[in-house]
Amino acid sequence: MNKNKKIKAGVVGATGFTGQMLVRILSSHPSVELVYLSSRTYRPVDYSELHPQFKGIVDIPCEPFHLKKASQKCDVVFLALPHMVSMTVAGKFLNAGKKVIDLAADYRVKDSSLYRKYFGKSHIDKKNLKVAVYGLPEFSRKQIATAALLANPGCYPTSVLLALIPLLKEKKIEPEVIVSSVSSITGAGRKAKLEYHYSNIAGNIWAYKPFSHQHVPEMLECLKLLTRQKVSLTFIPHVAPVDGIYSTISVRCKRKMTVSGFLNIYKKYYVNAPFVRFKDVPAQLKNVTGTNFCEIGVNVSADGAKGVVTSCIDNLIKGAAGSAVQNMNIMFGLDETEGLI
Amino acid sequence: MNKNKKIKAGVVGATGFTGQMLVRILSSHPSVELVYLSSRTYRPVDYSELHPQFKGIVDIPCEPFHLKKASQKCDVVFLALPHMVSMTVAGKFLNAGKKVIDLAADYRVKDSSLYRKYFGKSHIDKKNLKVAVYGLPEFSRKQIATAALLANPGCYPTSVLLALIPLLKEKKIEPEVIVSSVSSITGAGRKAKLEYHYSNIAGNIWAYKPFSHQHVPEMLECLKLLTRQKVSLTFIPHVAPVDGIYSTISVRCKRKMTVSGFLNIYKKYYVNAPFVRFKDVPAQLKNVTGTNFCEIGVNVSADGAKGVVTSCIDNLIKGAAGSAVQNMNIMFGLDETEGLI
Amino acid sequence: MNKNKKIKAGVVGATGFTGQMLVRILSSHPSVELVYLSSRTYRPVDYSELHPQFKGIVDIPCEPFHLKKASQKCDVVFLALPHMVSMTVAGKFLNAGKKVIDLAADYRVKDSSLYRKYFGKSHIDKKNLKVAVYGLPEFSRKQIATAALLANPGCYPTSVLLALIPLLKEKKIEPEVIVSSVSSITGAGRKAKLEYHYSNIAGNIWAYKPFSHQHVPEMLECLKLLTRQKVSLTFIPHVAPVDGIYSTISVRCKRKMTVSGFLNIYKKYYVNAPFVRFKDVPAQLKNVTGTNFCEIGVNVSADGAKGVVTSCIDNLIKGAAGSAVQNMNIMFGLDETEGLI
Amino acid sequence: MNKNKKIKAGVVGATGFTGQMLVRILSSHPSVELVYLSSRTYRPVDYSELHPQFKGIVDIPCEPFHLKKASQKCDVVFLALPHMVSMTVAGKFLNAGKKVIDLAADYRVKDSSLYRKYFGKSHIDKKNLKVAVYGLPEFSRKQIATAALLANPGCYPTSVLLALIPLLKEKKIEPEVIVSSVSSITGAGRKAKLEYHYSNIAGNIWAYKPFSHQHVPEMLECLKLLTRQKVSLTFIPHVAPVDGIYSTISVRCKRKMTVSGFLNIYKKYYVNAPFVRFKDVPAQLKNVTGTNFCEIGVNVSADGAKGVVTSCIDNLIKGAAGSAVQNMNIMFGLDETEGLI
Repeated sequence: MNKNKKIKAGVVGATGFTGQMLVRILSSHPSVELVYLSSRTYRPVDYSELHPQFKGIVDIPCEPFHLKKASQKCDVVFLALPHMVSMTVAGKFLNAGKKVIDLAADYRVKDSSLYRKYFGKSHIDKKNLKVAVYGLPEFSRKQIATAALLANPGCYPTSVLLALIPLLKEKKIEPEVIVSSVSSITGAGRKAKLEYHYSNIAGNIWAYKPFSHQHVPEMLECLKLLTRQKVSLTFIPHVAPVDGIYSTISVRCKRKMTVSGFLNIYKKYYVNAPFVRFKDVPAQLKNVTGTNFCEIGVNVSADGAKGVVTSCIDNLIKGAAGSAVQNMNIMFGLDETEGLI
Repeated sequence: MNKNKKIKAGVVGATGFTGQMLVRILSSHPSVELVYLSSRTYRPVDYSELHPQFKGIVDIPCEPFHLKKASQKCDVVFLALPHMVSMTVAGKFLNAGKKVIDLAADYRVKDSSLYRKYFGKSHIDKKNLKVAVYGLPEFSRKQIATAALLANPGCYPTSVLLALIPLLKEKKIEPEVIVSSVSSITGAGRKAKLEYHYSNIAGNIWAYKPFSHQHVPEMLECLKLLTRQKVSLTFIPHVAPVDGIYSTISVRCKRKMTVSGFLNIYKKYYVNAPFVRFKDVPAQLKNVTGTNFCEIGVNVSADGAKGVVTSCIDNLIKGAAGSAVQNMNIMFGLDETEGLI
Repeated sequence: MNKNKKIKAGVVGATGFTGQMLVRILSSHPSVELVYLSSRTYRPVDYSELHPQFKGIVDIPCEPFHLKKASQKCDVVFLALPHMVSMTVAGKFLNAGKKVIDLAADYRVKDSSLYRKYFGKSHIDKKNLKVAVYGLPEFSRKQIATAALLANPGCYPTSVLLALIPLLKEKKIEPEVIVSSVSSITGAGRKAKLEYHYSNIAGNIWAYKPFSHQHVPEMLECLKLLTRQKVSLTFIPHVAPVDGIYSTISVRCKRKMTVSGFLNIYKKYYVNAPFVRFKDVPAQLKNVTGTNFCEIGVNVSADGAKGVVTSCIDNLIKGAAGSAVQNMNIMFGLDETEGLI
Repeated sequence: MNKNKKIKAGVVGATGFTGQMLVRILSSHPSVELVYLSSRTYRPVDYSELHPQFKGIVDIPCEPFHLKKASQKCDVVFLALPHMVSMTVAGKFLNAGKKVIDLAADYRVKDSSLYRKYFGKSHIDKKNLKVAVYGLPEFSRKQIATAALLANPGCYPTSVLLALIPLLKEKKIEPEVIVSSVSSITGAGRKAKLEYHYSNIAGNIWAYKPFSHQHVPEMLECLKLLTRQKVSLTFIPHVAPVDGIYSTISVRCKRKMTVSGFLNIYKKYYVNAPFVRFKDVPAQLKNVTGTNFCEIGVNVSADGAKGVVTSCIDNLIKGAAGSAVQNMNIMFGLDETEGLI
């Protein structure tokens, strides 16, 4: 592609785990030119000096955030900022006529009252919250295509929603599910904490926030919107030394079901979804690590009354940077898979 | 302790993961003399040549199994054999007047018809199956104390039963639970398989046998026996690079419950259990790795209607060799904690 | 690129670690069409059934090896076969006018007498051994460009040679070096062995073959050819749970040296090498994992008399599949970096 | 042992990695009563609240450091403090007639001028530095037995010195060695740093301080003292995800040597050393992880001119807490192995 025709992309918050993955994917995307990188924590410096794995791959600087500079350079801005920080800048980019893809939680949930409860702060950009498009590509391609502000789904929600939406829409399962998810510690962000020390993660696993994780309202709202059902969701996230997210979903069937019954539903919904695969054995995380795929596995009890659906993604790719680029592809009329594996 | 007064112990199947852990614990047990080690797969050889980590610690040979020799030497024999092999030798040791602690599944489930279904073979020692004592020390000390044949509980069952029995006995939860467990690959035994290759386990996680794991009947039978309830159990085991077993148990409360309500029940049942601890936050695997402890964590939903109980153990210690030694301590009138951490 | 113009590539031995990495890289290479996959061990079957991570990415079958079929389909054949097997088929592909890139050791060392010593078999294709080009791209682009049979360098040699050749050619160090290398277990091939069991690799490290590794003659011959020096090499490989190869090279300087003196030499030799980077601190494996880069770090003692050069690569990419594709790019007149990160 | 006769032990700095390991070992030591734990960073609190893995095992509080209280309670004090902090308190315990075992570097090197260079501070307790005993039990049992202030050796030095001292004393190797060591990140202490984040350690390895590690003077001084030789040492430490320290030592033989020649020397020196084992193949870290053993492996080149000696320990046990307890055993006239595996 002619360099002048390339999409000019910037990453605000380029030094976190998600930011780095965005840089990695965007830097080898055939239709993108990466033109702007910023970070709140560092002085202007070669990005590859901060992250030496990019030396010879990404040769632009990482700068302190500067709205005007970013706006002038970019056609699209990826916000890989901490929760409740994106909402302080997204509107300004929109006002400058730029497309914004937000990877934080700031524009995912329409009910603005929930932000205080889950993130401790009131929402300060309710106007744009209203128009933001929740970008689960497999279910909202049309809206994504014309979105100016794209709220990229959370990592846990992506793994859970892709497994549940078809089953609920087809009314095959009771709207009461129990989800046990296991995630890489990278999901918690790149911070210096004793809890994230190698010696605390290697060989370890623990549950956290069993009834209060901030992704629950996101899942419930999306399920309600897309399936017209109020779902009862017990969500139990865990941290372990794994390379992605693995969700194990326990469901009860409304009527006797078979594995192929489940798979036929997925086939119907995902025939045109290039990044969703499904199978009649449990999913396996290794199969998606390093890719933008979601793998779904189905098992059903002998009496057809209960199902176990396993669903996994690479939390930094399909759970963040990969799906953000997938959304960008749709927003800019490119092939949905471009630059992604 | 006078060496002549020490319990003479042998391990049949001493080279597997469980066998090695038994050797490690027994070799430093103050009241035990380790006098016999055998293995089906190797010629007579110094045990520390097979497992060099024992050089200078265990200086006896590992021999091809020889019933008479083992009987003459040992007061108690630990069988760390593959499932359905223990039942070919346990009776013979009993006939010779020896105590037997079986770490396989052969004597755990009283309903002999289930062995064909879950292990592919008919039970050939139904007589001793009848008298075998299922050795969950926290609930059967009296029977264990006089047992000749001790069926040591499975690893998953130990983690699940210790969490569930008190809650069910007190009728605080519905007898319908969903258990998602994550285990070390050592639980599958020491075998040369591509599936167990380092590159297939590191960073990976997957569910297996979601409705058909061989530990389900063991759990159901024990729950029925001890709680007088028929429990509906959805059990979903996983493999991941963790050092033990972590079970996440989703329950519904019969009446509104609180965390302290749960903890008071555990306190009542485990006040004299030296290896069970419980707390008002999720359990954490690292806290029990390398020990004989079971750690139980309790969380309750805001409305008091649902609970998440997390329970973890070192699968080779409290889930196998450690509980076997705990049982031996009880069988021989020693302090239950002797030789264990 | 027009599909008809794409290079038709095949992988013989597509199911091993190197084979899988070749499939991964070739399947997303803009100028390559992957047309043939074979394996000695499996029946004809969808490749993505053997390796489910490729479902939706690679949709061709993996077949039992068939020379004629492979020849008809392919312009270039990658041989990812066990050592001493490549030499049984390479000549036949050459006779059919195909380009061959061999990732085994079979055509790396010109002195055919060494194969019996290091691999236990006599070389049976000495004719082609003579004409094969040892494909270290950074030093042999011209010969590679016209090669019909390309001997792809070994993983350890790549890390060591890129670090040493410039220093020896410039006569800055004594031709007597001590190399301690640490490698991922994937370097040993995808085999079901107890030694490769997760529980034997996690947290472990050990040296092996300290004076007799099969890569030593390859390094010595290449060093002699390219630097005209007979080098004394103590090579001590290790296995550890790391994602690549890390070589720590201890050298003595002929005259007082500085870090920048070393770096200037590397700059001279690698100014046009897109996949070699160098720096004044020790190399770090994470910086190259998942890429085709070699990272070289330089430290010098205070008195300028001794140097420590650290050099690392992803053993399956720059140490195998990546450099093979880099070589293919050169052989077919493409940009050296195409399809590679 | 009668509780009143038990050695009353305290750990100052009980919350770091070394402190925790000391607590673990001392709490199950048959002749020790753990009576005092302190930490600079936390308020008075149950130790098991800070480190829940000790709940039910260690039931005493961890207090802010209080010299008088510690002195009154303890017979022996283990200082697991940061370097250059021990020297501010050791003397006070000595004045109170207590035995002190220091696990920091403060009393290891007699040449007080080196502390400023390597630790950035002048030594402030030169009087006690003079009388401190460097406690390598295998070579200084007599001095250790009567020591009041014991300087416990560093982790790297322990692995290197045990391998080198016998060979140098017997004048079998040139006094010029190259050591490449790989260590667990726990050796760097328990700190919240991005560098120690799980995602930066898993799969990674890097060298650091190749010519300037603070353990070099410790090794050189000890070698000089014990072997009467000035040794030229190139020491290259690395960090990797391994459970201990593995040192690979490259030596040149003064005269032609054989493997058994080396092993006979080790046999001579270590016949009465319960925690040193040696063998004719490379050492393997797994063999010593979790134990107080040092395993030494010997390989010799075909011409008998060069040797590779591999030596490994658990860095927190034989490299710190274990050897400290071994030293305590000697200081109090106990069996050297008591309480240790």
